[in-house]
Amino acid sequence: MQIESLIICPETKARAGEFKTDHGKIQTPVFMPVGTAGSVKSLSPQDLTDTGSQIILGNTYHLLLRPGMDIMQSAGGLHKFMSWKGPILTDSGGYQVFSLGKMNKITEAGVVFQSHLDGSRHSLTPEISMDIQRSLGSDIVMAFDECTSYPATREAAQISMDLTHRWELRSLKYFRETKPLYGHRQQLFGIVQGSVYPELRKVSAQTLTDMDFDGYAIGGLSVGEPKEDMYAMTDVVTDILPQDQPRYLMGVGKPEDLVKAVALGVDMFDCVLPTRNARHGIMFTWDGPISVKAAREKNVHEPLDANCNCYTCQNFSRAYLRHLFKANELLVFRLASLHNIHFYHELMAAMRTAIQAGNFPSFRTDFFNRYNLKRAGGTV
Amino acid sequence: MQIESLIICPETKARAGEFKTDHGKIQTPVFMPVGTAGSVKSLSPQDLTDTGSQIILGNTYHLLLRPGMDIMQSAGGLHKFMSWKGPILTDSGGYQVFSLGKMNKITEAGVVFQSHLDGSRHSLTPEISMDIQRSLGSDIVMAFDECTSYPATREAAQISMDLTHRWELRSLKYFRETKPLYGHRQQLFGIVQGSVYPELRKVSAQTLTDMDFDGYAIGGLSVGEPKEDMYAMTDVVTDILPQDQPRYLMGVGKPEDLVKAVALGVDMFDCVLPTRNARHGIMFTWDGPISVKAAREKNVHEPLDANCNCYTCQNFSRAYLRHLFKANELLVFRLASLHNIHFYHELMAAMRTAIQAGNFPSFRTDFFNRYNLKRAGGTV
Repeated sequence: MQIESLIICPETKARAGEFKTDHGKIQTPVFMPVGTAGSVKSLSPQDLTDTGSQIILGNTYHLLLRPGMDIMQSAGGLHKFMSWKGPILTDSGGYQVFSLGKMNKITEAGVVFQSHLDGSRHSLTPEISMDIQRSLGSDIVMAFDECTSYPATREAAQISMDLTHRWELRSLKYFRETKPLYGHRQQLFGIVQGSVYPELRKVSAQTLTDMDFDGYAIGGLSVGEPKEDMYAMTDVVTDILPQDQPRYLMGVGKPEDLVKAVALGVDMFDCVLPTRNARHGIMFTWDGPISVKAAREKNVHEPLDANCNCYTCQNFSRAYLRHLFKANELLVFRLASLHNIHFYHELMAAMRTAIQAGNFPSFRTDFFNRYNLKRAGGTV
Repeated sequence: MQIESLIICPETKARAGEFKTDHGKIQTPVFMPVGTAGSVKSLSPQDLTDTGSQIILGNTYHLLLRPGMDIMQSAGGLHKFMSWKGPILTDSGGYQVFSLGKMNKITEAGVVFQSHLDGSRHSLTPEISMDIQRSLGSDIVMAFDECTSYPATREAAQISMDLTHRWELRSLKYFRETKPLYGHRQQLFGIVQGSVYPELRKVSAQTLTDMDFDGYAIGGLSVGEPKEDMYAMTDVVTDILPQDQPRYLMGVGKPEDLVKAVALGVDMFDCVLPTRNARHGIMFTWDGPISVKAAREKNVHEPLDANCNCYTCQNFSRAYLRHLFKANELLVFRLASLHNIHFYHELMAAMRTAIQAGNFPSFRTDFFNRYNLKRAGGTV
């Protein structure tokens, strides 16, 4: 998967480009809203298009358990099931097996786990993960890895990383032996592990690059490690990954993380933060996050951001949004999510424009001068 | 308030017409979605427009308690607060004081009650109800009445009705002495009471007609009485109310109720049923209500109604809707509500077309031949 029209910031490692899938072109850097169970929480496909979403994420673990792959296949895949016409990336299921499922056994073959929903027993192996992602029909498939938990000793991190490399090679081999089910092309990304150890991260990045995936993800970060480790590992890895293929930092992050990671050469991000925070009334603005449920907003008949052109800011005041939260009205979860997802996409688009215009460093300075990380009172 | 372009079915009392408000023209018969607390549950103003909503309802009791009239006035009224540009009808608050609030005292002056939210004490009198509805800025204001509870003896019903008539006269007098706050015209509807006693209903309809309101509501029905009483009372009342003004049957009802009441000469309806049922997966179709949560829908990759042009039916299968319900995904409450509200509006539009075309009786026959009241298994 080639990154085309690539422009690299001369002062940082920030990149702007684009790449193609059979469901459309993606302009980078890009944020991918998370559609866990076949729906980006509270938002319709039309809402996603309206907010500027180019590609969304689906979670293999959740969709495997519910609705299950028999229904998914008879629906004709996830695109048709959820009526999303753009590109979809699916994860391998591994991360959520470890974080949500009840793990029964990890062996060289893969994992056996019990569903957090009904206790039913399932296996996930590199081959099964590829089969599931074939059933989902995602445009971008993730190799099956073990997300090394944090903290991990260097020895444990290396053992985990080596297992991941063997699983990823099996993923790649099996993926190449199988075919898409629905007529459109699927591409496979490898995932770099190595915990917070630069030498392991270098080995992992080089090992995966040598395997020749269609793109590369940086996994095992944003799992509790200090922020400086997250950035240091990202920096090490992007120095090694091929320039002409997309790099995806999994599970990141806050707006300030996106700006910092773009500067380190990352092209793709996903995170539940904008939608989850929205459901709790934490709204993102260029001045920082604000809590629209706060008492000070109750008589503020102004939008969240007077310059924002999302549906929410074009039509509703902070006072109204606060009222809806207080009255527990369903509408507000959508209105809040619309704004936050729109903000994330605007932020990515602004970075892309700055990179293309050659002024990303000053954009970044301006962003951090204005953006007050603590504005919502430490609740973000 | 004149009903214009009035066409009356020769075989029944069904009517098609239109009337004007400062926020737009309303074509009758019309169904009004209920926006209890300043939001039709899960739907945005754009959704309401897209489904064909011409006018919506707001609840005085709910909006008085939250956000309160200080915030409502500083917002510039309910239209601006909730960003709805079409007409709004508000109730008088009386019904919900009796059904939700903790009643402390009913006197000739009015009622004193405690909020169901925080126990705070409030009064509602005809004059206060008018003031609140001036603050809300609704296009159609309802006179303050006592909704006679069911069952009531004839004597109790008469005492209640007489009190209602005195309160309605005070409502009318005070309404005429006060002015709209936001520059657009407001009009006042009287409410006919009289429980299930035809003689009382006749007296009430005549008394209110003599007072000369802008339109007339039929209240105190759909409160537990047998359906045949509801229709009989409606029939008695519409014989007396002026032909050239709108008639509104409050709180009704199911699709079959709407068809029957239109045949009895009713122009306007409101009910929480389409949105409440939607949130429980009960979906209305021309073949009757269905439960989309039922196991039989899990592999049905067809819309609720292949001929429906709502956003939900144009994009999503029953299997997907069922999955969203099972996964408790917020999106489904909106998708289900969109369909049900759209169905209600389509039903009203179909009746209007049939009345105008002179074939309402055959429309009604066809409707009841096709519509299976029990299809959802008695859950509707």
